[in-house]
Amino acid sequence: MNEILSVNPEDFDCTVQSGVTRMQLNNYLRDTGLWFPIDPGADASLCGMCSTSASGTNAVRYGTMRENVLNLEVVLADGRVINTAGKGRRTKKTSAGYNLTNLFVGSEGTLGIITKASLKLFGIPEATVSAVCHFPDVQGAVDTTVQVLQCGIPIARIEFLDEVSIDAVNKYSKMDMKVAPSLFLEFTGTPSSLDEQAALVADLCSMNNGSDFKWAKDPEERSHLWKARHDILYACMALKPGSKPYSTDVCVPVSKLPEIIKRSKEEITKAGVCGPIVGHVGDGNFHVFFPVDQNNPEELQKIQEVSKKMALMSLEMNGTCTGEHGIGQGKRELLVQEIGETGIQVMKQIKQTLDPKGIMNPAKVFY
Amino acid sequence: MNEILSVNPEDFDCTVQSGVTRMQLNNYLRDTGLWFPIDPGADASLCGMCSTSASGTNAVRYGTMRENVLNLEVVLADGRVINTAGKGRRTKKTSAGYNLTNLFVGSEGTLGIITKASLKLFGIPEATVSAVCHFPDVQGAVDTTVQVLQCGIPIARIEFLDEVSIDAVNKYSKMDMKVAPSLFLEFTGTPSSLDEQAALVADLCSMNNGSDFKWAKDPEERSHLWKARHDILYACMALKPGSKPYSTDVCVPVSKLPEIIKRSKEEITKAGVCGPIVGHVGDGNFHVFFPVDQNNPEELQKIQEVSKKMALMSLEMNGTCTGEHGIGQGKRELLVQEIGETGIQVMKQIKQTLDPKGIMNPAKVFY
Ligand SMILES: Cc1cc2nc3c(=O)[nH]c(=O)nc-3n(C[C@H](O)[C@H](O)[C@H](O)COP(=O)(O)OP(=O)(O)OC[C@H]3O[C@@H](n4cnc5c(N)ncnc54)[C@H](O)[C@@H]3O)c2cc1C
Ligand SMILES: Cc1cc2nc3c(=O)[nH]c(=O)nc-3n(C[C@H](O)[C@H](O)[C@H](O)COP(=O)(O)OP(=O)(O)OC[C@H]3O[C@@H](n4cnc5c(N)ncnc54)[C@H](O)[C@@H]3O)c2cc1C
Repeated sequence: MNEILSVNPEDFDCTVQSGVTRMQLNNYLRDTGLWFPIDPGADASLCGMCSTSASGTNAVRYGTMRENVLNLEVVLADGRVINTAGKGRRTKKTSAGYNLTNLFVGSEGTLGIITKASLKLFGIPEATVSAVCHFPDVQGAVDTTVQVLQCGIPIARIEFLDEVSIDAVNKYSKMDMKVAPSLFLEFTGTPSSLDEQAALVADLCSMNNGSDFKWAKDPEERSHLWKARHDILYACMALKPGSKPYSTDVCVPVSKLPEIIKRSKEEITKAGVCGPIVGHVGDGNFHVFFPVDQNNPEELQKIQEVSKKMALMSLEMNGTCTGEHGIGQGKRELLVQEIGETGIQVMKQIKQTLDPKGIMNPAKVFY
Repeated sequence: MNEILSVNPEDFDCTVQSGVTRMQLNNYLRDTGLWFPIDPGADASLCGMCSTSASGTNAVRYGTMRENVLNLEVVLADGRVINTAGKGRRTKKTSAGYNLTNLFVGSEGTLGIITKASLKLFGIPEATVSAVCHFPDVQGAVDTTVQVLQCGIPIARIEFLDEVSIDAVNKYSKMDMKVAPSLFLEFTGTPSSLDEQAALVADLCSMNNGSDFKWAKDPEERSHLWKARHDILYACMALKPGSKPYSTDVCVPVSKLPEIIKRSKEEITKAGVCGPIVGHVGDGNFHVFFPVDQNNPEELQKIQEVSKKMALMSLEMNGTCTGEHGIGQGKRELLVQEIGETGIQVMKQIKQTLDPKGIMNPAKVFY
């Protein structure tokens, strides 16, 4: 089940079996000048990414799995096999019938097993440049993000790291960045459009009191920077040797980020735990990667409480209790608060009609 | 029901009641520097556009309604009211539960009545320039389109018009374009990025034997050009005074466009009817706008036959029988062929569970 079944370079699409991973696909595509940009950090299976509706650092430019799946082959609970858009269909858009594709994307394995996925592909950008900038506070970093979006700058990545995360990265990845709320940025395009975008963003950063703006232009420097960003979970764990990760993610309208990050930090401090904050801020989404001492159930409980408070704050601010990690078992109660009883009834009606015996990933998403 | 309930400029979103139209919203937004880009030509209601999953000329850049709706309030068949993403939620992304929003988008009123929609907004581009280029054949126009996408040029619009359509436009909108397969193009961005994009695309056009490349730089010229494009339905009707429009739309993987357009033209010629072809070619989608003499049932039948043949050709080429117009009553049988019996069963199970008495838009989408 780990075969790449077809790649159609002229049509910017491909079809893969359920075991194919993101990196396997991108390695395979290398000579075509195309890539699949959705990158949740981990080298997950593409059908797993469909199932969790993964997103990650490139979502601000390319969207999430929701926007990038053309068709799925799914085995249903009763053994029937469907193609959500019809067998072999792989058009960029369609108005034919219900959007079954996006019913299965993000359904966390509770409606069926995805056995094939047809995905959109994109041209690899001609040139890329990255940068880091540090801010006196969260507000400066978020204001910069909003202004970048307002100016329609086609930013490729815009990632927030708080001072705790920067400290973790400095130690783990041997860097010497200023320990302050920061943005990691990436620009792609033609060389001259990069210069223009970059100059504009550098201006916006300094208008918002950003400092130590530093380019990473050559490929090695760039890949060091993004490897450091992708290793952040391990960097956070290294802050407390022997710890295991407990991560949470919430997503709010972008204007609410400064407030929710400030209040989350207060809760983290009050609980006396270590909680580095890292965010896909262009989407209003952020994570806390708590390193947890497995032999300290009290600490774990405190972290779970902070995590729940953050989700509730997010709901208060028109946000969601999960921007990209999904509901699983841990957020089932929060889901009810988020969607409301009637909406949950509708979701359960759909579950019931497609999986009446409840055999697909039981006890996930709903009670 | 025609109130704009909220606009959140910092969050790039708004919420509207069901009667608000696209132009009403964009007029209201004018001072914010934002706009809602999905433009199906007609000044449709935004909730109607949700219901039909509308797209149009800007979809190549901004996607369709599927990618641009954050939340819907829906009244179900039994009177229950749900908010597909939970009341008040308006995040750019979410992984919380099933994607009910996109189940209702494109459901053509068969699952419930949409009473409110929360939509994404975008910054109005700083500068815009348009262009027209003519080609000796369809292939040249399509090859140019594929290469533009491959180069990652962030084209704002790329519309195909065949020679019959150009002739219709020349007559109706008083223009004097070369009567040949043509592309209408639009570029947006900063002034200097426009120059770069435009130079690149002009090169691609001439590499594919495009000629008479003509810029429309000043706003009047541009709006004349796009008004002509948007008036195309009326221009086609004017080719046969007294006629009414019969339009069809199909969508294929973009590499199949030359073949399906060629074969469609052959069918049109064989049937002896008038059938101008106009396409959102960046998405692989095109229309035929047949002017029909209402007093000639034989002609109508011929047109319906051509239209059905086109849909079947599209299905043969991994395409869909409708890229943006929906199934309605006319394409119900084609939908079964497109999705397959098992997929249709699943769609009907969802319909049945949410509308057991079949009172929502009966006889639409399914038999
Ligand atoms: C270090 C790290 C960083 C991460 N960062 C991000 C991030 O930034 N953004 C983000 O969005 N995610 C992130 N993730 C989560 C990642 O997206 C998920 O782990 C991934 O999408 C799941 O794919 P998988 O192959 O690992 O699936 P698994 O972990 O095996 O499964 C995940 C869920 O999907 C179901 N599932 C798996 N395959 C199928 C299938 N074929 N059909 C039906 N259901 C299936 C499983 O039942 C399970 O419920 C991160 C994960 C790690 C480990
Ligand atoms: C000249 C012209 C050009 C067009 N060009 C394009 C194009 O290029 N691309 C494109 O995508 N479309 C195009 N269209 C179609 C257009 O997108 C649709 O007409 C529009 O989306 C439907 O909105 P409406 O308000 O007109 O709805 P209506 O025509 O009133 O209804 C359309 C359908 O949606 C249902 N509906 C309407 N409102 C609701 C609601 N609130 N809740 C539930 N169901 C509802 C109705 O029951 C019906 O089934 C064109 C139309 C015209 C007239």
